[in-house]
Amino acid sequence: MTTATLRTAVVIGCGATGTSVALALTGAGVEVTLLDDDPRATAEAVALGAGTAWTPEHPPADLVVVATPPSAVVDALYRAQSQGLGHVYTDTAGAKDVIVSDAELRGCDLKGYVPGHPLAGPDAPGRADADATRFTGRIWTLCPYETTPAWALRTLDALIEACGAQRLDLSPQIHDRVVAELSHAPHLVAAVLSSRFADSSLGFLGLAEQGLRDAVRTAGGDPWAWGDVLAHNAGPVADVLDRIAGQLSRAAAILREGDESAPLELALTLEEGRRGQAALDGTGDVRTPRDASAAGRV
Amino acid sequence: MTTATLRTAVVIGCGATGTSVALALTGAGVEVTLLDDDPRATAEAVALGAGTAWTPEHPPADLVVVATPPSAVVDALYRAQSQGLGHVYTDTAGAKDVIVSDAELRGCDLKGYVPGHPLAGPDAPGRADADATRFTGRIWTLCPYETTPAWALRTLDALIEACGAQRLDLSPQIHDRVVAELSHAPHLVAAVLSSRFADSSLGFLGLAEQGLRDAVRTAGGDPWAWGDVLAHNAGPVADVLDRIAGQLSRAAAILREGDESAPLELALTLEEGRRGQAALDGTGDVRTPRDASAAGRV
Repeated sequence: MTTATLRTAVVIGCGATGTSVALALTGAGVEVTLLDDDPRATAEAVALGAGTAWTPEHPPADLVVVATPPSAVVDALYRAQSQGLGHVYTDTAGAKDVIVSDAELRGCDLKGYVPGHPLAGPDAPGRADADATRFTGRIWTLCPYETTPAWALRTLDALIEACGAQRLDLSPQIHDRVVAELSHAPHLVAAVLSSRFADSSLGFLGLAEQGLRDAVRTAGGDPWAWGDVLAHNAGPVADVLDRIAGQLSRAAAILREGDESAPLELALTLEEGRRGQAALDGTGDVRTPRDASAAGRV
Repeated sequence: MTTATLRTAVVIGCGATGTSVALALTGAGVEVTLLDDDPRATAEAVALGAGTAWTPEHPPADLVVVATPPSAVVDALYRAQSQGLGHVYTDTAGAKDVIVSDAELRGCDLKGYVPGHPLAGPDAPGRADADATRFTGRIWTLCPYETTPAWALRTLDALIEACGAQRLDLSPQIHDRVVAELSHAPHLVAAVLSSRFADSSLGFLGLAEQGLRDAVRTAGGDPWAWGDVLAHNAGPVADVLDRIAGQLSRAAAILREGDESAPLELALTLEEGRRGQAALDGTGDVRTPRDASAAGRV
């Protein structure tokens, strides 16, 4: 069956991302069934009005959304396809290249599978609140294969529309480099920065400025979920981390040398930082960037 | 003259910090005169109601506040003392150990000089807005000498009270370590992080989450002012940067090794980061921490 519409969906994984997708789909009139290894998670999502619990009596759905942590995606996808849960499959994992490779190695059916990731939304691991509007106005990246049929993409378009998001196609490699720069590496930097304060006295921390609290806020995310995501985007994240570590080591060396030119040399880095901050800030509070199609140019 | 009160003050340096101090003092009924190498800066501060321009006819003031960038403090202090501008002297520079050493080497009169730094306020270099309430509820660190007479400290107390701040005595070394951890090194980290985006396409930056914008906001500060401050706190800042660079390099190595234990090893760092973030957040939005006296325990 090659339906272009989206009337029924299975959501596998009832965490914040899966439940949010299910809530949005239900709100858009899609008949959603829910699946989670943890029956309590399923029950909670059902209680929120995200859909009904999946049972084997259900016919294959138009779409299966695998919303598990990255390390569970390929297994869940393979099992779901083996059981014939649906016609089109996607996932929401924050790293794509390894998952795409593993899915092929594992022997998943790639024809109906479109790797995806709702990218620039507050679906960061560790944010716990399911919300039907979680993806409204956000970018939803897809990594279609060259062979992905149009009918599968139409189903994905219907999913993204139901969630109020905007589709952006990226190759898995570009996707992973983008999120390494904008999300994964900065998260680790924030964690390393704030890890210094895990055992500090309250009096000491009371001397911190608000800017520091803002700088490390993202480090409050779930360590296990983030560890899983980072490990699935290892190469690109390691590249960014090594580069940042190198820049910090050079700044430290400039400081230790103590030449009179140190303020000037540091100011060059700081000036570049200010330009970057201004550029980033210029794109702030824009849920739907106008030229997102240019995102591939990292 | 050993007055314990504060009726007259000279503020040297009419940037945001100096003008804010002058506005607060004027508001508290102190007669303030203003001095800046740039007559336009003086005129602007006068126009804001921060005081009147200093002239040689003025008798020595109860207090002289040197509010120049760190690299200009010792010269300004020496000149002011040579001219007999006042009875008690302080400064507001964000690094103290080097300035205290240089002041001694230069032959400044240390008896009436109390090194100071309004610490946990929005007086970060590069924030341009002078404001009489800039230091209200903030910590004002002093680094008194063992020989500093009580009357000089009483004048400083009057300054800090007029600014609505809370006094915290630290040694120059502890002060510098504290600000290196909480402000100087995090600023450079933010600058390095955002420097990546100085030449990125808008489309790429539109994919960034709000958390990244918050993380690098501080990098918007004035590069020259920050370069000067950082160079004056070189050792402590370099120590923190090297440590952070080491942690990031280790995380990169864990990712590159690609062991199955990578998510676990990363989660340990991330968990420590989460604890630190929670600890920091627990002290947020508190302008006057209750146990700030414990701040020496870094």
